[in-house]
Amino acid sequence: MTVVLIAIACGLAAVLYGLITSRQVLAASAGSEKMINIAGAIQEGAKAYLGRQYTTIAIVGVVVAVLVWLFLGVTSAIGFVLGSVLSGAAGYIGMNISVRANVRTAEAARSGLQRGLTVAFRAGAITGMLVAGLALLAISVFFYVLVEGLGHGPTDRVVVDALVALAFGASLISIFARLGGGIFTKAADVGADLVGKVEAGIPEDDPRNPAVIADNVGDNVGDCAGMAADLFETYVVTVGATMVLIALLVAGTTEQLTSLMSLPLIIGGVCILTSIIGTYFVRLGGNQSIMGALYKGFWTTAILSIPALYYVTTQTLGDMNAVIGGAQEAAGFDIDPTVAATAVTDGFTGMDLFWCMMVGLGVTGLLVWITEYYTGTNYRPVRSIARSSETGHGTNVIQGLAVSLESTAMPTIVICVGIIVSYQLAGLIGIAFAATSMLALAGMVVALDAYGPVTDNAGGIAEMAGMEDEVRGRTDALDAVGNTTKAVTKGYAIGSAALGALVLFGAYTTDLDRYFADVAVDFSLSNPYVVVGLLLGALLPYLFGAMGMTAVGRAAGNVVIDVRDQFRSNSGIMDGTSRPNYARTVDLVTKAAIREMIVPSLLPVLAPIVVYFVITAVAGQANGFAALGALLLGVIVSGLFVAISMTSGGGAWDNAKKFIEDGNHGGKGSEAHKAAVTGDTVGDPYKDTAGPAVNPMIKITNIVALLLLAALAAGGPAI
Amino acid sequence: MTVVLIAIACGLAAVLYGLITSRQVLAASAGSEKMINIAGAIQEGAKAYLGRQYTTIAIVGVVVAVLVWLFLGVTSAIGFVLGSVLSGAAGYIGMNISVRANVRTAEAARSGLQRGLTVAFRAGAITGMLVAGLALLAISVFFYVLVEGLGHGPTDRVVVDALVALAFGASLISIFARLGGGIFTKAADVGADLVGKVEAGIPEDDPRNPAVIADNVGDNVGDCAGMAADLFETYVVTVGATMVLIALLVAGTTEQLTSLMSLPLIIGGVCILTSIIGTYFVRLGGNQSIMGALYKGFWTTAILSIPALYYVTTQTLGDMNAVIGGAQEAAGFDIDPTVAATAVTDGFTGMDLFWCMMVGLGVTGLLVWITEYYTGTNYRPVRSIARSSETGHGTNVIQGLAVSLESTAMPTIVICVGIIVSYQLAGLIGIAFAATSMLALAGMVVALDAYGPVTDNAGGIAEMAGMEDEVRGRTDALDAVGNTTKAVTKGYAIGSAALGALVLFGAYTTDLDRYFADVAVDFSLSNPYVVVGLLLGALLPYLFGAMGMTAVGRAAGNVVIDVRDQFRSNSGIMDGTSRPNYARTVDLVTKAAIREMIVPSLLPVLAPIVVYFVITAVAGQANGFAALGALLLGVIVSGLFVAISMTSGGGAWDNAKKFIEDGNHGGKGSEAHKAAVTGDTVGDPYKDTAGPAVNPMIKITNIVALLLLAALAAGGPAI
Repeated sequence: MTVVLIAIACGLAAVLYGLITSRQVLAASAGSEKMINIAGAIQEGAKAYLGRQYTTIAIVGVVVAVLVWLFLGVTSAIGFVLGSVLSGAAGYIGMNISVRANVRTAEAARSGLQRGLTVAFRAGAITGMLVAGLALLAISVFFYVLVEGLGHGPTDRVVVDALVALAFGASLISIFARLGGGIFTKAADVGADLVGKVEAGIPEDDPRNPAVIADNVGDNVGDCAGMAADLFETYVVTVGATMVLIALLVAGTTEQLTSLMSLPLIIGGVCILTSIIGTYFVRLGGNQSIMGALYKGFWTTAILSIPALYYVTTQTLGDMNAVIGGAQEAAGFDIDPTVAATAVTDGFTGMDLFWCMMVGLGVTGLLVWITEYYTGTNYRPVRSIARSSETGHGTNVIQGLAVSLESTAMPTIVICVGIIVSYQLAGLIGIAFAATSMLALAGMVVALDAYGPVTDNAGGIAEMAGMEDEVRGRTDALDAVGNTTKAVTKGYAIGSAALGALVLFGAYTTDLDRYFADVAVDFSLSNPYVVVGLLLGALLPYLFGAMGMTAVGRAAGNVVIDVRDQFRSNSGIMDGTSRPNYARTVDLVTKAAIREMIVPSLLPVLAPIVVYFVITAVAGQANGFAALGALLLGVIVSGLFVAISMTSGGGAWDNAKKFIEDGNHGGKGSEAHKAAVTGDTVGDPYKDTAGPAVNPMIKITNIVALLLLAALAAGGPAI
Repeated sequence: MTVVLIAIACGLAAVLYGLITSRQVLAASAGSEKMINIAGAIQEGAKAYLGRQYTTIAIVGVVVAVLVWLFLGVTSAIGFVLGSVLSGAAGYIGMNISVRANVRTAEAARSGLQRGLTVAFRAGAITGMLVAGLALLAISVFFYVLVEGLGHGPTDRVVVDALVALAFGASLISIFARLGGGIFTKAADVGADLVGKVEAGIPEDDPRNPAVIADNVGDNVGDCAGMAADLFETYVVTVGATMVLIALLVAGTTEQLTSLMSLPLIIGGVCILTSIIGTYFVRLGGNQSIMGALYKGFWTTAILSIPALYYVTTQTLGDMNAVIGGAQEAAGFDIDPTVAATAVTDGFTGMDLFWCMMVGLGVTGLLVWITEYYTGTNYRPVRSIARSSETGHGTNVIQGLAVSLESTAMPTIVICVGIIVSYQLAGLIGIAFAATSMLALAGMVVALDAYGPVTDNAGGIAEMAGMEDEVRGRTDALDAVGNTTKAVTKGYAIGSAALGALVLFGAYTTDLDRYFADVAVDFSLSNPYVVVGLLLGALLPYLFGAMGMTAVGRAAGNVVIDVRDQFRSNSGIMDGTSRPNYARTVDLVTKAAIREMIVPSLLPVLAPIVVYFVITAVAGQANGFAALGALLLGVIVSGLFVAISMTSGGGAWDNAKKFIEDGNHGGKGSEAHKAAVTGDTVGDPYKDTAGPAVNPMIKITNIVALLLLAALAAGGPAI
């Protein structure tokens, strides 16, 4: 268990990095009193929103925790609570830093681009490291206590179930946070734009717009807290599921299995260290390229991780060429030999696992590059949207939709190649390790993403506080890059979510075989219940997406009505003589977002349960399990496309607008620009609400299925 | 074989109906010389386009025919040619009637709404009956000649392969016709709107717009010829695949199997008769509701079909409660007992099959109703889009996209319930019969659809010829309904295509078992090659959709440039003193559409072949077959969602615009109307190019896979 202790130490290092860097960020000047006031309003709004969001989730959480306790016992319930509390904490702390760093970034931008970049990126890095660190700590401490402290065997059912429950806790928070935050941010953004830019004709971030503070709050609760919860969840789920799969599938002595099960933890640990090192490489080069500076950090981390992963794998497993695994027969579970054979082929070596990790890093790099291609202003897709804006709103949207559909192709092919190669190397376990090494970079990737809302806010504060044009220019430059990093992170998040979900699906089929060996489940595609399951699973992201988009539309409509009312009842606002009631708008969006997030969030929790019981009632338990399994895969397959097309398409629309604003196709104010603004508005809920919320949705469906199996096996409400 | 002869007689009745009704339609007056001239230009354009389209397809077709001959023998090659020629003929004749009926409808509208409706609907009915009649004749005559004439057993491999090749011929035409026609119609439509309505500020169908004839040509080659080829194909594929499945799966004497195999043919035959009767019920009632008149025809057909189907089933099978089928063992094929068991459970009775047909009719009725709900101006979805147009272009598009995503839910659930019920009744064969009875209504459904372009053209001609406002009002009323019927037909087409494709997929798995009994194919969802196949299959509709949308954008851009050039070089056009060069624009769109249709059409033909060979090279033939099978199902699952969301969403956008034009939310010319025009433009390539072309794409992928199996089994290029 030494390895686990080292992983715990790495997790603590991340937290320590967070503490030290927080001090550095907070030590920077927060600027003038006006700036402090504006930032204060944003802080207040963000806190109020997250407070209310977590209170609502807590009510759902307590109910679910009791259910977990009743069906799966106290250890699982503790895992569930741990997962949800730490996921919430990562988001909350990240948001807290973010709303303090925004104003400091604006102030630092006075003294130059590099200063502004440093403050903003450090703030992002704090969130990033906390996400990776707390996630790693959650699993590794929990695993250590269960195995070393309470003396359970590493592959005991109580340990496996508890790890799944831990992931469930994180997932449940994540789907609410992603969706609630996503609705908040886009309702405020779209609403503010509609009533401000379009109706009143005032610029973005104009302090006269009552929705402007809500818009800035939204950046923090959506892109920062929401993304943090999302990747915390993917991390816990993927690493946890990898450990569970090892426990279920691999044959070996307790000692061997303990080593192998701690390998994912140390992979996470060592990559935290390389991520921390990477953060120090984020510096402007001679060409003053901000994106270049950020990528320097990312690529440093990725490249340093190669030898680091090799080293920890050797240290953990010893001989890299010794064959491990093979079908598990000794460990006491009743695994169907064909399942085990599919899963682990002929055993694998440490070297095989290392290559699988390289596949994970490769997939990460390629997904980053592909997303950059589809959302960057230098390439064909964005430029084609910009060009088509010249012929009007309609052609802009048509081209944007075409790009969004097309953008699914290369990521899918990369993921398929990743699946095939890692499977050839080490079976299902190989896929699991590829996913784990992908997630191991989460600290750095979240850092890039969380940088976005900080700079976005910094720009808003600079505008509202009436800072000099030069400063505004710098914050704009920092912000423009934030758009790309946000898009890139989303590409990474959905790619890793899909692989993570496949690992979960592997756990489902294995678990099924373990708990219900006597039920002959026909997972074959020629079983019509499998087809029905695939269809219903594929439907979920569509329905979920529709609900998310409609929610944004409805909530944004409320914002428009509120702002119109403020303009009407207080004529001093437009003259600049009277301050709008920012808090009223924030409160309104808060209530709307909380209200709108409930039903869609419950969809993926309830769908697997309903489908299982309905199909079981109609066609027996074996077909119920088959349909449920197919539903899981249907969600993954369809969700991948829905999420990629929405996030890439939205990013492309956004940057097509930016490209025109940079003076192309007539520049700001031209007809092409108006069309591009329409495209950007359409892309907003696509890329920031519906698309990203599909990630946690995919996984929660899979986790609920795993828990359902465990509950049924434990004598739950079987039919 | 008497039953087959009766089916042939029914097919001939449809052709006879076409001949007689053509005479009636052509006997009507074609109006003034001006009208005849305009109609002449449309006729010329449509003929020129279809001529060039068929020439291009013929080149591909000859190559493919030779390949089919080489790999599968002369009988299959004849089947292929027969399928493609008849599919082309159905489209060509339909278009020919349509471009003559348009001007006669405009003229007839002078004497009243009922007269206009009669001419337009009869023209549609000719196309509808020819599609169903020729499709039925193709299969039944071919089957009769092979079995009765050449003495093959009904389940002989040469018969099975020939039926698949027949379907392939129809499919290959269909994908080109659908896509080429779809690109033509929307490139002309979008291009004409952009440069006419938006830039020059002249109304739709204004004779000064050089693209106006191309726009009217597009209606005929897209909605009439394209849809005809599509449903001809679905009909042949579904009925053919049902017969193939019976041959492969059901045990019985040759006599029993011949009866059962001719049942799908007589189902098609009797429903042609009920469809013909239904056409005579299309009459305006007291409320002057045009939609009501059309639905009267549809529901009459549907309801008359119930006793008719019961009667022919009893007559064909004899005792309705005798058990037929059960796993086939006697017929000499080496069917894996588990496959056969999944397929036919415990045998089925004639009564079971009758109930499956009722499921097919029920699914048809529900899909029609659901599409009407999502695209009709009387219901929430369209109204929500209209309302959101008030806040601008962006919110219109957001709400439209939300509706398009949501509109997939109810059809999916209906299809799932249909699958489950018919499977419970009679296994895979039950699903096949449900699909067959759905398709049996194709004659009536195509009639409703082909009515659309006739009235659309009639409105255009009335406008261009400067007919009285009263007449224009009538043609507008006829046209408005055409939008809904076109949407409804598309919902039906994709639903039936999905069920038909599932039947094809069943044929694939069965065929695999028959030809490659020694290859242990693991179709289980836990096989990663199945996951890879599902992902790649799901990708195809996305990529195909992207290509279709981009093609429209590009071709529409060419139209804009051409029209701008005509306006510039001939200033008399805008004054009305000089006639624009319509033919030049038609020719340009023709060339663009032909050029753009090639690559996307080859995607579904080549993808299954590439995936099979690549995966076989990497992971062996068993996994190659598994990945290929999964690819097929991936295309079906993902294609269903892409197609429904696009066609329903597009229809909803279109009618939201109509709803505003009817005087709601500010009416014509308001800001809301402008936003709604944007939504309509976006919806155009969605609903008329990319969405509907997914149908033939789904099936051609499946048919290519079946042919690949046959070719490999016949000693083709195996690895």
